[in-house]
Amino acid sequence: MYVNALPRYEILSDEAMSVLDGGWRRIVSELGVEFMLPESVELFRAAGQKVEGEKVFLDPDFVLEQVAKAPREFDLVARNPEKSVHIGGQHMVFGGVYGPPFVREGDVRRDGKMADFENFVKLAQSFPELDTPGGTIVEPEDRPLDSRHLDMVYALQTLSDKPYMGSVISAENARDTIAMTDIAVGGRTSPATISLINCNSPLRWDDRMLSACHEYNRAGEAVVMTPFLLMGAMSPVSVPATLVQQMAEALSGIALTQLVNPGCPVVFGSFLSNTDMKSGSPSFGTPESAIGLLCTGQIARHFGLPFRSGGGLNSSQTVDAQAAYEALMTMLPTFLAGANFVMHAAGWLEGGLVSSYEKFIVDIEILRMLKHEFQPLEVTEESLAFDAHQEVGSGGHFLGAAHTLIHFRDCFYRPLLSSTENFDRWSKNGGKDAVARASDIWRKTLDEYEQPPIGDDVRDTLRDYVARRRIELGDEPIPTPAF
Amino acid sequence: MYVNALPRYEILSDEAMSVLDGGWRRIVSELGVEFMLPESVELFRAAGQKVEGEKVFLDPDFVLEQVAKAPREFDLVARNPEKSVHIGGQHMVFGGVYGPPFVREGDVRRDGKMADFENFVKLAQSFPELDTPGGTIVEPEDRPLDSRHLDMVYALQTLSDKPYMGSVISAENARDTIAMTDIAVGGRTSPATISLINCNSPLRWDDRMLSACHEYNRAGEAVVMTPFLLMGAMSPVSVPATLVQQMAEALSGIALTQLVNPGCPVVFGSFLSNTDMKSGSPSFGTPESAIGLLCTGQIARHFGLPFRSGGGLNSSQTVDAQAAYEALMTMLPTFLAGANFVMHAAGWLEGGLVSSYEKFIVDIEILRMLKHEFQPLEVTEESLAFDAHQEVGSGGHFLGAAHTLIHFRDCFYRPLLSSTENFDRWSKNGGKDAVARASDIWRKTLDEYEQPPIGDDVRDTLRDYVARRRIELGDEPIPTPAF
Repeated sequence: MYVNALPRYEILSDEAMSVLDGGWRRIVSELGVEFMLPESVELFRAAGQKVEGEKVFLDPDFVLEQVAKAPREFDLVARNPEKSVHIGGQHMVFGGVYGPPFVREGDVRRDGKMADFENFVKLAQSFPELDTPGGTIVEPEDRPLDSRHLDMVYALQTLSDKPYMGSVISAENARDTIAMTDIAVGGRTSPATISLINCNSPLRWDDRMLSACHEYNRAGEAVVMTPFLLMGAMSPVSVPATLVQQMAEALSGIALTQLVNPGCPVVFGSFLSNTDMKSGSPSFGTPESAIGLLCTGQIARHFGLPFRSGGGLNSSQTVDAQAAYEALMTMLPTFLAGANFVMHAAGWLEGGLVSSYEKFIVDIEILRMLKHEFQPLEVTEESLAFDAHQEVGSGGHFLGAAHTLIHFRDCFYRPLLSSTENFDRWSKNGGKDAVARASDIWRKTLDEYEQPPIGDDVRDTLRDYVARRRIELGDEPIPTPAF
Repeated sequence: MYVNALPRYEILSDEAMSVLDGGWRRIVSELGVEFMLPESVELFRAAGQKVEGEKVFLDPDFVLEQVAKAPREFDLVARNPEKSVHIGGQHMVFGGVYGPPFVREGDVRRDGKMADFENFVKLAQSFPELDTPGGTIVEPEDRPLDSRHLDMVYALQTLSDKPYMGSVISAENARDTIAMTDIAVGGRTSPATISLINCNSPLRWDDRMLSACHEYNRAGEAVVMTPFLLMGAMSPVSVPATLVQQMAEALSGIALTQLVNPGCPVVFGSFLSNTDMKSGSPSFGTPESAIGLLCTGQIARHFGLPFRSGGGLNSSQTVDAQAAYEALMTMLPTFLAGANFVMHAAGWLEGGLVSSYEKFIVDIEILRMLKHEFQPLEVTEESLAFDAHQEVGSGGHFLGAAHTLIHFRDCFYRPLLSSTENFDRWSKNGGKDAVARASDIWRKTLDEYEQPPIGDDVRDTLRDYVARRRIELGDEPIPTPAF
């Protein structure tokens, strides 16, 4: 489990925070927030909030009372206890890209298939830099929409032994996720799944996602209440205006979870970038999104909540220099802000439309570097290595110094993907750029993948569940692989 | 002039700083520092320091007394006063790559030529993100070594009207730089050049560079006293041990400048990365170098000195994803640390062996983004745009909101290089990746380059100087272009 013990980088003054605080209070009380699920509205009405149709006008202090019931930190357990993680505090948890319909493999861009989904779960299982494969790491377009979630959850459970994200399409899908989790991680006292509930921003929570959310809340499974904010489209073209909208949406959603089940685990979510006002397209890895990320961390801590933000976001069409600098332009602030739960940490390409095999490896390298970088520097007398200076003196070199010989194996970060070969050697070795090397790495990783052990009984019970539910949902039987 | 008014990111505790403080004191007093120029040693001896041959054992308090005479901040003037900059405080000044013998243009890697040098100066002049072309932006291998500096300084002076860096090969070269600067920027009361004096680390200052340094000090021109530290080769394999070595070297060098000419402008320099202990090659854009950079900023402020560090450093052989993430892995900490003078801010490739045209454009984009990002966020009632939220309400969109229509032109960063085109449009437009687009941009920039005005008399005087000195230095006459 990675703990980021370096300081947080904070750019909001107390005065700025107080202005933002006034802003969200005004939005929830004067403009209100829509909840498209009658059950949700009823919970607010019963708790004394003013309701007009689907719109709820919230007393900000009531919202904060509910928010205060949510845990500040919680464990997220895996079927392999060694892979359990902690959400909150100085902990940072990383998951794969979530949601793309397309795959990029080298120069080929195509529809995602179940085989790709399985490949990405295997890659996420193979790299310790990721704590979870995530959930919909790519949409398997070759599986029927109604029962696709069963195949995905089964693959997440059997090809990996890390925690995972559940289906949020409907209450029924959420119940399937929970039932399958009860089979694989029975008898748990902490959540074993963490699921993404997006706001239909601005200021509207969708009925299908809310119904899934309520299921997870009741079961004590974790949810991430996430305003979905592309400034200029779903929020105003102003970072502060977007931050107060994000507070209004996230806090109202979190308040709802605590009405459903006080004390259930929930994360303050953020997905905040901006529209390219010239092309009209979403834009990622932008300066504005980095600023928003830093502020979001500060805001979540202000309310004592763990938060989700960041990732290897970018708008690039290929795994080129743009993909890399945009990804790091988000990922480095992710560490500076200390995001507790980081979706899209590996594989995101083309504004999230594509799960890219090569980008996955680039992102793993970036994560490895940043986890190495964001470690406290131990400055002790011993670390000053005066003996080495004494040995080498002026004008010599340290390559053969005793201190170097003791420490050379683990003194510095060792890259996975990056090359420091000199030009001649690099040319002789084929002159492969970072994408070509990344391609070699993911193929080799899949070749060497080893499935984590799972009991035959557990696996068979899961298989039976998937087979039965697929037919109940009206889809043709498909043999469930005996992973 | 760019001012970075965001907070500095500091990771050293007071206790850590105190341990480091003890470390450099011990090095300068117990191990001493070598100064290979007799004149320098004599200055220390006359000031009461213990000398053994070329080695000077320094009283740390004496060092700090000298250091305290250096200005905390100073102006660096350009022949066009609008291009003058300020070194120190919250100011950050950026220059092009410095020193590569090779050029990369697309897929071609070749020796650098005078025509390349001129091209890079034109590019540096064209982009406001750079405050100075730097100095040896590429080595023009087609010019004789003895008189090459004349051609370079002449090109810097005539193809650009920004400040520039002088030659440091010898005292004679420094005198040429100063004489030519007197012609181009006569009557100045602040330095118009800033020159790089590297330490021959560990703990040795080289005679040729020192003799150039003394010339610049006496003329009141600025110097950057820079330990050259690739951990594992020129310093121990420990960041704290390297930091104290850097303090010992930089502070002893700065003390010398103040003995030569008390109050002369000087910058605390840092060039700190590590050896790849597997390949033995220098490695850039590493986690260790980022940590070193953050610490260096804190250390320089501790001594009240402006500091040089950072840049778009990387080890990559091509302008690929590695080149981009390594460059940003250094450049983002450069902003977090608030480096006052940033060499290698555009064009650096392949561990500094190559000046790359395409990487130059990638770096300009990175600089533009970071300068946009590192601006204080104004959080006011007005910035909350409550009217926009009132207008759009729940579930709508902000694309046509009045607030958006007023602000859409300048609300967000607008990219130079990055593309947000959707896949279909991007494919139709040729499917160009970042390198291909960067190639278009630098070529177009050179096509549209306009030379800054210079008086005929000044230019002719410079030409005459170059022609005369070239013959004095024993080289064949070459027509100096009438830029």
